[in-house]
Amino acid sequence: MSWQTLLRRHEQQFVDELVEFCRIPSVSTTPEHAGDVTAAANWVASRMTAAGLEHVEVVPSAGHPVVYGDWLHAGDAPTVLIYGHFDVQPANPIDAWTSPPFQPEVRDGRLYARGASDDKGNMLAPVLTAEAMLAIGALPVNVKFLFEGEEEIGSPNLPPVFQTHVDRFACDIVYSADGGQRSEEQPSLTTAFRGICGLHLIVRGPHSDLHSGIYGGTVNNPALALSEILASMRNSQGKVVVEGFYDDIEPVSEEMQEIVDASPIDNDAYREGLGVPELFREPGYSTRQVSWLRPTLEVDGMWSGALGDGRRAIVPAEAHAKLSCRLVPDQSPEYVLDCLRRHIEDHTPRGVTAEVRTIPISSAAYHMPVGHPGNRVAANVLADLYGREPLIGLSGGTIAILNMFRKYLSAYTVSFAFALGDENQHGPDEFFRLSSFARAQSAYGQLFEALASTSL
Amino acid sequence: MSWQTLLRRHEQQFVDELVEFCRIPSVSTTPEHAGDVTAAANWVASRMTAAGLEHVEVVPSAGHPVVYGDWLHAGDAPTVLIYGHFDVQPANPIDAWTSPPFQPEVRDGRLYARGASDDKGNMLAPVLTAEAMLAIGALPVNVKFLFEGEEEIGSPNLPPVFQTHVDRFACDIVYSADGGQRSEEQPSLTTAFRGICGLHLIVRGPHSDLHSGIYGGTVNNPALALSEILASMRNSQGKVVVEGFYDDIEPVSEEMQEIVDASPIDNDAYREGLGVPELFREPGYSTRQVSWLRPTLEVDGMWSGALGDGRRAIVPAEAHAKLSCRLVPDQSPEYVLDCLRRHIEDHTPRGVTAEVRTIPISSAAYHMPVGHPGNRVAANVLADLYGREPLIGLSGGTIAILNMFRKYLSAYTVSFAFALGDENQHGPDEFFRLSSFARAQSAYGQLFEALASTSL
Repeated sequence: MSWQTLLRRHEQQFVDELVEFCRIPSVSTTPEHAGDVTAAANWVASRMTAAGLEHVEVVPSAGHPVVYGDWLHAGDAPTVLIYGHFDVQPANPIDAWTSPPFQPEVRDGRLYARGASDDKGNMLAPVLTAEAMLAIGALPVNVKFLFEGEEEIGSPNLPPVFQTHVDRFACDIVYSADGGQRSEEQPSLTTAFRGICGLHLIVRGPHSDLHSGIYGGTVNNPALALSEILASMRNSQGKVVVEGFYDDIEPVSEEMQEIVDASPIDNDAYREGLGVPELFREPGYSTRQVSWLRPTLEVDGMWSGALGDGRRAIVPAEAHAKLSCRLVPDQSPEYVLDCLRRHIEDHTPRGVTAEVRTIPISSAAYHMPVGHPGNRVAANVLADLYGREPLIGLSGGTIAILNMFRKYLSAYTVSFAFALGDENQHGPDEFFRLSSFARAQSAYGQLFEALASTSL
Repeated sequence: MSWQTLLRRHEQQFVDELVEFCRIPSVSTTPEHAGDVTAAANWVASRMTAAGLEHVEVVPSAGHPVVYGDWLHAGDAPTVLIYGHFDVQPANPIDAWTSPPFQPEVRDGRLYARGASDDKGNMLAPVLTAEAMLAIGALPVNVKFLFEGEEEIGSPNLPPVFQTHVDRFACDIVYSADGGQRSEEQPSLTTAFRGICGLHLIVRGPHSDLHSGIYGGTVNNPALALSEILASMRNSQGKVVVEGFYDDIEPVSEEMQEIVDASPIDNDAYREGLGVPELFREPGYSTRQVSWLRPTLEVDGMWSGALGDGRRAIVPAEAHAKLSCRLVPDQSPEYVLDCLRRHIEDHTPRGVTAEVRTIPISSAAYHMPVGHPGNRVAANVLADLYGREPLIGLSGGTIAILNMFRKYLSAYTVSFAFALGDENQHGPDEFFRLSSFARAQSAYGQLFEALASTSL
């Protein structure tokens, strides 16, 4: 029997297991879910052991643990490290979900659950592939699995784990099961990711919330002051006017420009899909250029005073905003944070104070040579699976660990995963196509076979 | 035995009863506490009945109920209506309280609880006074009590109640047990209150929260757009630049200016008391002028996207702000709301939509003649109690029902209450001085006696 047949036979069992996995609310962004992230790590370790992998271990870190396991009996064949993450984004606003985020539900061949697409479905697939291959014999390459629980918070505690386990994690190349394809018909290979940095801005006024009738108008209102600071950061055209923000960005190379040109965005369909009255972006760039090649400044969250239905007539004591920037090659997260800090200092109105806390997610942009043999193998597998050559793509997102694979293991990472852009990652009603789940399993089998005869 | 002696004898019992009253979380601003507001109404009705008052009834409205009761056996003596409210502001942020807001605690002669000062301690006092006077005989005037449960939300459901019960509530004058004195040594008479209006501004962008890596930079960020709208509403000096905002304001009369001049604010002490780095107000006016005679624009609350510790890298789908304005005589709440609506329409950035919902708290400013006999009687009682003539004062706050007493009962309202400015009304650690609680009881006794021989 072939590993393909074996995978098909267990299709329903694997979906049931993915459902079980997605029931664990392994939200890494809030301390109250730390136990759930560990529970997900334990679930992954058990499943890896059941699959026949060896040296499976939940490796602690100063934050959330990583899970490691391997099968290293392929002699001189290459050693491949498979990466993924079992932590998920928070599920708020819960009310906006059709079915509860941690009660997975299959509708129309799609599994709806927080983390189904990002990244539990994707990361589970190669484990199942390894199980099928081991059940009928052996893996054609040496395989290491490294799954983390801090992807969604920028992997702040991973560097010491790499330092300790550099020999254990050593590999020729990394394949990342965190990412996606262009569509169900069109494969793609992602060769670059943007970086990120973020800060928490706190504007403080009076020592406590004040009665707006008695004190209103005599002290600065922190919510208004915060609004003024934020509004000062960009112009009405959408260009960031924080001094230095666009420093150090290299002109776009011809290769990059070609990659971008090969993947135009239909602005009307894009606008309609997002439900906005019109698109809004840095002047002088196309939608695709902005999302792949330009840095961004976004407010992820903001709060002050009376929230929701509650009504209070007050001057709030403080106002908060969380900002994050996506960064492009040659931008330093530290430098951009410094620019923001200086801007905030220079634009804090009278009557309030501003505190800036760095959010520990700083990560520079990542890119790898398009023609790298690791990409070529992946491209061949994808072409075979889809019957169509993959487009080269860039990602506007960030996977902090990719820079660590470079730094500690001297290994490039090939993005090899099967999420699609409409699957509501990070939003309500996240889902993963079960067809993609099955395709991912086949893809990893073909990849392992092709890698056996590749010189990396 | 005198009513004074009787009040003193029951002092501890009355404090215990006030503690019981303050245990009821009768927050009128959020629907989930509606049952508690009714529970407070029932508590008040029981206590009034126990005091010997007649025709006690919890009168329903389309919102929270009012409580009515009377004692009308004083023949030709004046009929006085005593007003107060048993609803309270929300207690958020709960964490900022030293003891829980609805577990009243006496520390250093102060009762700490949400509503202790605003207005449960104040409103309970005249009921206790009536009880003591009835216990030894009779009240010297006809007294009606009207307590409401919607003061903190601007009494939106009270007008129909007045229409139905106009004969029942008819009176020569109203004394309001909601308000305060200048200090423990210095009495004051408040003859004017500012009005109020408010709106809930919702800025909408994409149909749901978006992954900031994939979509960031291509659509407008509703939190940033909201910030820009809010920032456009005032200049860096603190002057509101919403067109028409300062229309219709009459020049300050000589009488008003004298009242203001008689009550200067020590800016340094005031600033230090509030804990702000510097004061911030409309240019050209003193702190006292701003808080009594000028309209204000405040953001009471604001929220968007990821709140608190949660970290999400998103473009939020929407952003919210609640704004309120305190209004001075001759400003129409509807006109000011229209000005704000037009301003928001004119200043909504591209790529988002803005919705404005009127918050049903609209109320015009209120003022009564300083020399009205109702004020003179109150002034005499206060002078006797404090050994010092009261200052005339204005209030920056709003009591919506005062305009209804004028409109439906043709009655002026004299503010006769004993809260003090440092008692953290609407904020954490609200408290009421037990000495003020006792003083309020005596004051109402003297007031009833003095009114018996007053021609109103």
